[in-house]
Amino acid sequence: MRELITPALAQQRILAALQTQPSETCALEQCAGRILRAPVVADRPFPPFDRSMMDGYAIRAAEIDRDGRFTIVTQAPAGAPAQQLGHQPQACAEIMTGAVLPADADCVVPYEQTRRIDSTQMQVLEPNQHAAGDCIHRLASDRPAGEALLTAGRRIGSREIAIAASCGCDHLVVSKKPSIAIVSTGDELVDIVATPAAHQIRRSNDIMIEAALQHFDLPAAQFAHLPDNAAASKAQLKALIADHDLVILSGGISMGKKDFIPDALDALGLDCQFHGVAQKPGKPLGFWSQPECAVFTLPGNPLSTLTCLHQYVIPALFHSLGQAAPTTPHTVSLDAGVRARDDLTIFLPVSLHANNIARPQPANNSGDLVRILQSDGYIELPPCKEKSYPAGKSFDFHPWH
Amino acid sequence: MRELITPALAQQRILAALQTQPSETCALEQCAGRILRAPVVADRPFPPFDRSMMDGYAIRAAEIDRDGRFTIVTQAPAGAPAQQLGHQPQACAEIMTGAVLPADADCVVPYEQTRRIDSTQMQVLEPNQHAAGDCIHRLASDRPAGEALLTAGRRIGSREIAIAASCGCDHLVVSKKPSIAIVSTGDELVDIVATPAAHQIRRSNDIMIEAALQHFDLPAAQFAHLPDNAAASKAQLKALIADHDLVILSGGISMGKKDFIPDALDALGLDCQFHGVAQKPGKPLGFWSQPECAVFTLPGNPLSTLTCLHQYVIPALFHSLGQAAPTTPHTVSLDAGVRARDDLTIFLPVSLHANNIARPQPANNSGDLVRILQSDGYIELPPCKEKSYPAGKSFDFHPWH
Repeated sequence: MRELITPALAQQRILAALQTQPSETCALEQCAGRILRAPVVADRPFPPFDRSMMDGYAIRAAEIDRDGRFTIVTQAPAGAPAQQLGHQPQACAEIMTGAVLPADADCVVPYEQTRRIDSTQMQVLEPNQHAAGDCIHRLASDRPAGEALLTAGRRIGSREIAIAASCGCDHLVVSKKPSIAIVSTGDELVDIVATPAAHQIRRSNDIMIEAALQHFDLPAAQFAHLPDNAAASKAQLKALIADHDLVILSGGISMGKKDFIPDALDALGLDCQFHGVAQKPGKPLGFWSQPECAVFTLPGNPLSTLTCLHQYVIPALFHSLGQAAPTTPHTVSLDAGVRARDDLTIFLPVSLHANNIARPQPANNSGDLVRILQSDGYIELPPCKEKSYPAGKSFDFHPWH
Repeated sequence: MRELITPALAQQRILAALQTQPSETCALEQCAGRILRAPVVADRPFPPFDRSMMDGYAIRAAEIDRDGRFTIVTQAPAGAPAQQLGHQPQACAEIMTGAVLPADADCVVPYEQTRRIDSTQMQVLEPNQHAAGDCIHRLASDRPAGEALLTAGRRIGSREIAIAASCGCDHLVVSKKPSIAIVSTGDELVDIVATPAAHQIRRSNDIMIEAALQHFDLPAAQFAHLPDNAAASKAQLKALIADHDLVILSGGISMGKKDFIPDALDALGLDCQFHGVAQKPGKPLGFWSQPECAVFTLPGNPLSTLTCLHQYVIPALFHSLGQAAPTTPHTVSLDAGVRARDDLTIFLPVSLHANNIARPQPANNSGDLVRILQSDGYIELPPCKEKSYPAGKSFDFHPWH
């Protein structure tokens, strides 16, 4: 490791070094979860006509007299062209929600506020309760044609999909997904289906990283495992860096005798943006970059991998995808005092309870992932002189994915 | 519509009528986001051996004298079988994080707390600062073998995937995804790629529903569009109900002359659990069921569709998948007083701000989806005599997906 830097500086260096992904055109039904890169413009006003908001009768409000009777002269179902009431006084149209208001009507009275007299007559029940404009969603009252409804940098969810569909966009310009390689290291690791010898454990960090990225619909393009051998690791790393936008390694980067990765990355010509962050867990975190590829070296203890993935890698990915604004944080309050450090930031697992209460769920150590099942996410405790934070203190909550 | 029922009673009737999905076996790498149905049991203790938590030297703590010198007799890399220090006093092993502690050592001293003298000698810098057990993650200290680490009903995220991998589970028993049909209705609707006539609008509710379900990795198996024609609608509905576990309709269920759907569902022999909820938006919401299929009839106005989907359909889906516990709610406080009703629950769109502040972002009407882009989710305002809630009042926040 080199000199420890603060988590904030680490984040800053990552974001500064990352390239923005290029954009591509994508079929609308594949766009959920992606970041928009070109605006979606209203091709028609919203709504595109004077639209009835209720099922009932379209009338001219000024024609309501004390008796409130109207003659039904036409039907205005949704999906039919605009009707006319015509010149006959107290004419009305039976109208459906979503239908075009007859051009010479100015008010819709819902069924519930009328009484049907016979096949051609209805009566408005409370004649004084209705006025021009009632129950009408006016042409262009939400937005005029030509306005950008969705702007670049927005993450696309169900609402954005519906707006784009309304505007006739069956394709959108979105950020291309990065090509991601997930790389595990360490001779102590064996396959999931293997029966480990007493000194071995099964490989789990790579599939954990994959699962968290899948939550954001960012699939891994390749998996690799580096042996504890300098020359073989370097050759494999060279190929991975050439083929991918992002390489995420776990393990092999602390002070161990067999931790060749930092030397290999330096030798391959990547710039070390940092190696070592004043934080716990995850102190040996490193980040190397060149214009075409960024490499995260996550510490191999499972809780360190998990925490660094959530705190650094996922936000970096959304930054490189061009997301304009991160999600508004969920603020939580500690239900008990916690120990902090004066020299390190602590990422503390917490469980979430009613009224935004967070309960500390510290791990025994950063190898203890089982204990972390009791937490819902983590909070960030900055270093402080007092080496503690009291119950009631507020922090941003970061959920596990 | 029939008699209006409360949102709570509507939810209760939905959950009571829904069948639990059967379970199936799924490859571990496909399990993220799914609901576990059979426990994952530790096949070995966690951790499976006395594991070094640091890179450094394994020693016998009782052998630290005032001088603190030790002789390096062996290497203990991760992935190698257990070593021995042997009978020589002040013997130590150079050890890596994750390696097996030599059977006759009891303490690990990190590199940072030592000084290397030469190729065979090192010195512990602060002899009084080390004790038996230091920097050792003891065999079984997290969990014994045979214990259920993950229980049925848990939603599978990255941590659960890693735990399952550690236990050698390359497949898990999870809930089968329901077969879902999404059905739009209404002759006023045209395809996304069509140029609508003045009185037409493009179809967007179906793809909006699809996008929200995709967020939870619940794909739609079929899309259909029902014309405003009773006989044709009934025949199509019959086939959809026969082929799917869940049918989600939007539109065609209020009091309009052409709203045949409720009659068709009754005629097809489904039980109407309710039709009409004392809420705004979404008053005409309905729910029909038979043992093999459930049918939601969502009101067709986009905001009504979106709200009912989030409030009723998605929680119902997770219930039918066997999820044990819903997510802990995020509590927010209003930054301004809001109007409420004494007879209806209001689902109010809000934007989310720092410190869990929610700002009301009411729509002009339930056809106004563009305005809803300014919100991040919604809160539920129960009916109250005062017909208002003051600034500072707290509610659960429900994010849009």
